[in-house]
Amino acid sequence: MAQQAIYVGLDVGGTTMKAAAVTDAGEALSPPAVMDTNQERGQEAGLETMCETIRRAIAAARLKLKDITAIGVATPGLMDIKAGLILDPPNLKPWKNVPVRDHIQKAFNKPTVFQNDANAAAYGEFWVGSGQEANSMVLFTLGTGVGGGVIIGDMIVEGEHSHGGELGHLRIDRPDCGRLCGCGARGCLEAYASATNVVRRAREDLAAWRGDTALRKYFTANDDDFTAKIVFDHAHTGDPLALKVVDDTAYYLALGACAVIAAVDPEMIVFGGGMGASGEWFRAQIDTYIRRFGLPHPAKSVKVKFASLGADAGFIGAAGCARLAMKNK
Amino acid sequence: MAQQAIYVGLDVGGTTMKAAAVTDAGEALSPPAVMDTNQERGQEAGLETMCETIRRAIAAARLKLKDITAIGVATPGLMDIKAGLILDPPNLKPWKNVPVRDHIQKAFNKPTVFQNDANAAAYGEFWVGSGQEANSMVLFTLGTGVGGGVIIGDMIVEGEHSHGGELGHLRIDRPDCGRLCGCGARGCLEAYASATNVVRRAREDLAAWRGDTALRKYFTANDDDFTAKIVFDHAHTGDPLALKVVDDTAYYLALGACAVIAAVDPEMIVFGGGMGASGEWFRAQIDTYIRRFGLPHPAKSVKVKFASLGADAGFIGAAGCARLAMKNK
Repeated sequence: MAQQAIYVGLDVGGTTMKAAAVTDAGEALSPPAVMDTNQERGQEAGLETMCETIRRAIAAARLKLKDITAIGVATPGLMDIKAGLILDPPNLKPWKNVPVRDHIQKAFNKPTVFQNDANAAAYGEFWVGSGQEANSMVLFTLGTGVGGGVIIGDMIVEGEHSHGGELGHLRIDRPDCGRLCGCGARGCLEAYASATNVVRRAREDLAAWRGDTALRKYFTANDDDFTAKIVFDHAHTGDPLALKVVDDTAYYLALGACAVIAAVDPEMIVFGGGMGASGEWFRAQIDTYIRRFGLPHPAKSVKVKFASLGADAGFIGAAGCARLAMKNK
Repeated sequence: MAQQAIYVGLDVGGTTMKAAAVTDAGEALSPPAVMDTNQERGQEAGLETMCETIRRAIAAARLKLKDITAIGVATPGLMDIKAGLILDPPNLKPWKNVPVRDHIQKAFNKPTVFQNDANAAAYGEFWVGSGQEANSMVLFTLGTGVGGGVIIGDMIVEGEHSHGGELGHLRIDRPDCGRLCGCGARGCLEAYASATNVVRRAREDLAAWRGDTALRKYFTANDDDFTAKIVFDHAHTGDPLALKVVDDTAYYLALGACAVIAAVDPEMIVFGGGMGASGEWFRAQIDTYIRRFGLPHPAKSVKVKFASLGADAGFIGAAGCARLAMKNK
């Protein structure tokens, strides 16, 4: 191998871990190595699985450990980013106070960087994805929850308590009467726009809907298999109720975007995760609502895009974080 | 004079301009030179007044131009910070497209830095005011409007379109039914918590209030002179209606604070401007609402303070911005 710097990015999720060796230009050298997280086996086993996923990623790229410049690890929170610790993440039970960074660093004897998974995904999109032309970018990740990351001029806004970019908890409705969020508060964006809550709203809207909708037939036949994707698919075929639910979702996401515009005025806002695949109509709808409800001057100029790295954003971004740390050294 | 670096900070407001020579440690070497803005005389006259205010500040500090390292100028928006231009500020009619930075730079032949006034005030508090121990800080400035500034690790979040920290336009209520803001949208923090809107809410609450309140007597006798300060003063003496209005204000400000916590998770949130003088009770009330309605982990740790530089924050901060630019050179 030539002397090009190579980074390993590892993305630890509640279900699987993914890692790949990534070049200095942000290209993964192989499809990611994937292993089950098996969180219930405990954190010692979890740390060993992280190491094994990294080893497999290096092998998959036909490299040796000596070819690797640094390692980046992204995990869900709660965490202490500066200390390199997983604290008490709801998505990784029963793990607690896991010294991820130091463990990986010692196991491989390589500079190791630790980051929140949504921040890493945001950095990935900023580095080599949809945001690569932008000077500042905010990512909303849409999944079971709503997460996010804020990047300003090659700096990740980690937050003083490792909670920067908790965009699912931007409040888009009143705290006394808004929808109840998993965090215990009312009115959070996540309580409206996560995949789970898109389905909930679809069920509620169905109950109040008069007239024809294919969604009712689907729901009656497939109650257990009623997902946000189904709602979006029905919107694509023009079902009026599904269109309403999706349009409301665009409106809620736009209100979240308007809040980050007022706070940090980014050049670009990127929407990633499942709903990102729902097509230009949905993006344009979010865009329209941002222009209608955002502060006029920045809202008319902000660029609104879907993410482009898909599920790879996490490990590519984790590798990017490692690269960024080496650059800033 | 010794070789210590000295900066001139100029704060241009709608009514007056203030400037002072400021040491590398953030101390003003004299009370500020103050001149009337006289915006109606036009922008050419305005630029000359800026120069004259700077000259008077240098003279007041018994310095010569050669003792000055750099100049910082802060003005209200709309503006293009990177280009050093005032664009079309509502507070400086009829000025338009004024090349402030280049004009001052040429007039004095000194490195000159241009900044938004609220950002400059935030940087002043961060540099040598309430935020000097903090690594990241958000300032809410409470006046005729509500402004703000976001500072992260010695970086001012200017925003990509010079609208970073427009915290008065964080939305704290629904865009369909919230209070109407001067920006044309509904639900903006400014429509609730600016001095003007504190008075408006007090009038509305008065209309609906049964029972005794000294505020009604005051209002009946002094309709024209009914200010936010009067409301806060009556709250101090325990008037129940004034207490309600002030408590609501704390609640609204806390909702704005919760939004910046979710977006950037700062170490400290500082409230400046007129209401900052309203005492520990008001601060504690904002603090309580932040803890009740904010994302638990960061909200329990964030520090909530009043600003400490008062009306000097603008020119001290402007000088600080000049110093920061020289440091980053």
